[in-house]
Amino acid sequence: MTSTVAIIGAGVIGAGWAARFLLNGWDVRVFDPDPSARDRVEKVLAAARLSLPGLGEVALPPEGRLSFPRLISEAVRGAGWVQESVPERIELKHKIIQAVQSCIEEGAILASSTSGFTATELQSNSSRPDQILVAHPFNPVYLLPLVEVVASDRTDPDLRDRAVMTLTDLGMAPLQVRAEVPAHIADRLLEAVWREALWLVKDGVATTGEIDDAIRMGFGLRWAQMGLFETYRIAGGDGGMAHFLHQFGPALKWPWSKLTDVPEMDDTLVATIAAQSDEQAGGRTIADLERQRDHNLVGLIRALGAQGWGAGAIQQAADERRMSGAGVPARFEDITDPATPVVTLHRAVPLDWIDYNGHMTEDRYLHAFGDASDRLMKLIGCDLDYVAAGKSFFTVESHIRHLKEVTAGAPLRIETRVIAAGGKKMHVWHEMKSGDRLLATAEHMLLHVDLETRRSAPLTPLLAERLATLVDAQAELDPPEGLSRAIGDPI
Amino acid sequence: MTSTVAIIGAGVIGAGWAARFLLNGWDVRVFDPDPSARDRVEKVLAAARLSLPGLGEVALPPEGRLSFPRLISEAVRGAGWVQESVPERIELKHKIIQAVQSCIEEGAILASSTSGFTATELQSNSSRPDQILVAHPFNPVYLLPLVEVVASDRTDPDLRDRAVMTLTDLGMAPLQVRAEVPAHIADRLLEAVWREALWLVKDGVATTGEIDDAIRMGFGLRWAQMGLFETYRIAGGDGGMAHFLHQFGPALKWPWSKLTDVPEMDDTLVATIAAQSDEQAGGRTIADLERQRDHNLVGLIRALGAQGWGAGAIQQAADERRMSGAGVPARFEDITDPATPVVTLHRAVPLDWIDYNGHMTEDRYLHAFGDASDRLMKLIGCDLDYVAAGKSFFTVESHIRHLKEVTAGAPLRIETRVIAAGGKKMHVWHEMKSGDRLLATAEHMLLHVDLETRRSAPLTPLLAERLATLVDAQAELDPPEGLSRAIGDPI
Repeated sequence: MTSTVAIIGAGVIGAGWAARFLLNGWDVRVFDPDPSARDRVEKVLAAARLSLPGLGEVALPPEGRLSFPRLISEAVRGAGWVQESVPERIELKHKIIQAVQSCIEEGAILASSTSGFTATELQSNSSRPDQILVAHPFNPVYLLPLVEVVASDRTDPDLRDRAVMTLTDLGMAPLQVRAEVPAHIADRLLEAVWREALWLVKDGVATTGEIDDAIRMGFGLRWAQMGLFETYRIAGGDGGMAHFLHQFGPALKWPWSKLTDVPEMDDTLVATIAAQSDEQAGGRTIADLERQRDHNLVGLIRALGAQGWGAGAIQQAADERRMSGAGVPARFEDITDPATPVVTLHRAVPLDWIDYNGHMTEDRYLHAFGDASDRLMKLIGCDLDYVAAGKSFFTVESHIRHLKEVTAGAPLRIETRVIAAGGKKMHVWHEMKSGDRLLATAEHMLLHVDLETRRSAPLTPLLAERLATLVDAQAELDPPEGLSRAIGDPI
Repeated sequence: MTSTVAIIGAGVIGAGWAARFLLNGWDVRVFDPDPSARDRVEKVLAAARLSLPGLGEVALPPEGRLSFPRLISEAVRGAGWVQESVPERIELKHKIIQAVQSCIEEGAILASSTSGFTATELQSNSSRPDQILVAHPFNPVYLLPLVEVVASDRTDPDLRDRAVMTLTDLGMAPLQVRAEVPAHIADRLLEAVWREALWLVKDGVATTGEIDDAIRMGFGLRWAQMGLFETYRIAGGDGGMAHFLHQFGPALKWPWSKLTDVPEMDDTLVATIAAQSDEQAGGRTIADLERQRDHNLVGLIRALGAQGWGAGAIQQAADERRMSGAGVPARFEDITDPATPVVTLHRAVPLDWIDYNGHMTEDRYLHAFGDASDRLMKLIGCDLDYVAAGKSFFTVESHIRHLKEVTAGAPLRIETRVIAAGGKKMHVWHEMKSGDRLLATAEHMLLHVDLETRRSAPLTPLLAERLATLVDAQAELDPPEGLSRAIGDPI
């Protein structure tokens, strides 16, 4: 059975809601009198189609149907959910709510994306306040899980529970806000940072870029995985949260920020926070939390590294500087002896390459071998400029033997031979070692391709010449043990 | 040439500094009269050895030497860098600075980890203020790149520049703070959030766990990659930062938070922020920034998914619910016809699986095939409980043929056959499709292993029986095209 949602107001938030519902199999009706709304929804939807379906490890249901009815009544009639995301003016919201409620069924959920108004404020003047609540999401709505759910005591509790279930089914993390306060929870915290940040800019202490770096190179990374309190719990060490509070409580009395209204850190508040923090930790020790934090941070920074962004870009720049010290040739001229295998990778096993068996997982062997192939490509002249100019290599066939296990932090080194090359092909052989231990071998056939036609294309003269240099020089070596194996061959 | 650092005070921050320097090849001398300091350093170092070396893609230099001299003079004599991380009491810091400066050379850098004091405050009473500055890091120091560098006008500018270069070489992101203000930049922002969060707890609006979720499920993820201003720049859309400010400026006058000292959002402040934000964006359009943000967020959430943590755990729970709808059997009994290949994976291509060639990168084929093997293992009874009880399968050999390209968001489906099984082995064949297109095939030999001895072990009866059911039923099928291929075989 397909469910139907009506999206009222298709700004960036409404369009984001439309995308999340649609990609989760809902039929979506968008109502927005703005003639540019349709374009905006299509644009957001295109971005969401690239990013949301692959966010998890399991396919989403087939997309629902998207329509743009001309009348609000057409949009909301029969819909099980109505999501209002119009501008933050209470009189406008009341008008919309009235129009919606004149057409929708009793059990339908009428949720508002408002950040500034409470459920009670939305409900005033409504004859059916029981179906109204706040479901405040965060941009981009199709990716970020947080949605603050605020009900008043006039909201039907069963309807609120159904709303929470539906949001959960959409892959979100509904946070039920206990009390109706202006701006709910997250935006109050954001507002506090925003004010302090404005003072820093106004006073010339820092630029917007510097403030953003102060966030994303430090506590922003922490906050992607643990919040303020759990982070401080760890900082308190084995003394726990109460210890942290007794140690840092006084900082509140210092004139550190311009924001001077400070709660009294009395015994009651310390006890409340310590008890809530204990419950939150769910029996995990500080050592458990530290280990988890490190795993998380490594995963986060490495994910940014793959994007060349933020903290990941910092790491990449450090890597560049370390290349020569690591004994990996950066240019073809750096290959001192073409008759011996070329070192194409020298790194350590990242924490996020370890699987449930406690060792480097199988696809990360190929990840490292793929990086080694990329390095070989760069050495012979197929670098990012070459790729940008329209040609590259694609791997068409791989054979990997996993010979030994390896664990986090251990060194990895790959030595590479070119078995044959010519025409449109390159046949390579990699050996991966950790110290003296041979961990794995990989044999690859790569095809030189034209990125325009996505078809194979002859090697350019420079590439052919450099590959021939390596093939000829290495032909003197014994053929590697395991070359041309098929699975099932006797060992 | 090896460099030497003296770490004065080995709490969690000092120990973190020790680990970062040591793993970057520095000789490290730790001075801390606390008898537990040595244990603490060793503990932090063990964590750092697991996580820091693999953070980047290039090996770190060989570790330096670690020592624990008994005298401060022994620790600092001849050191090029002295890092002070003692408790935040100015009289203690002055005492340490005096002791250090009586032994160190003129060109040595004396950096303090202080968050609360300015360089000028540290320098008072010092006869050589020129070598003193603040280098304020963030926990865990061995992973987080941010370090705030604050010099006063009495600090030697050349020495400050050298300090910045050294910190950069350590893989950090030094942020030079323009003005000496209490708590520098990041801690002022943190202090603002902290105060507001304390009010929320005190007023019973939210628990510590709810506040942490409000952070890590929403803006914390955003802030791991872009800061406050760049995020709002995107929210402002094509109207840019000035548009955003004119739209949201008024929010500052609303009683949203308890923190009431608000800067005037006058034309000068709007113009300053808009200009700084333009410079920060470096010519990237809003669409560019949105695309980058989505790539970053997908990478971050998926990294947390691999850890089963935070936003990643939310995604996993959603995946679990979607399994049956995706047509992937969850238990052996769900396999309706053992004589046909079993669907072991149905998902979409994640954004972070795409490489510089614009298609799914080679190791992610094996990643998906590995997940399919994991699913097959679960189906026959080798689930996480079975692994926890001490047995598992390791892949020992793989052969992959990459037949077609695939791009972000496209559906992936893997169908699996068991070619043979028995004794200690399992021989599987996977075919990966996107719609009707055959993208790749993979042939694997897996070995059943005892996780205690890390050696092969006979299949248990249940596993052997279920595998035999599949092998026998599927024996009727034609052998798959490409089985037992070696690289170089004619196509």
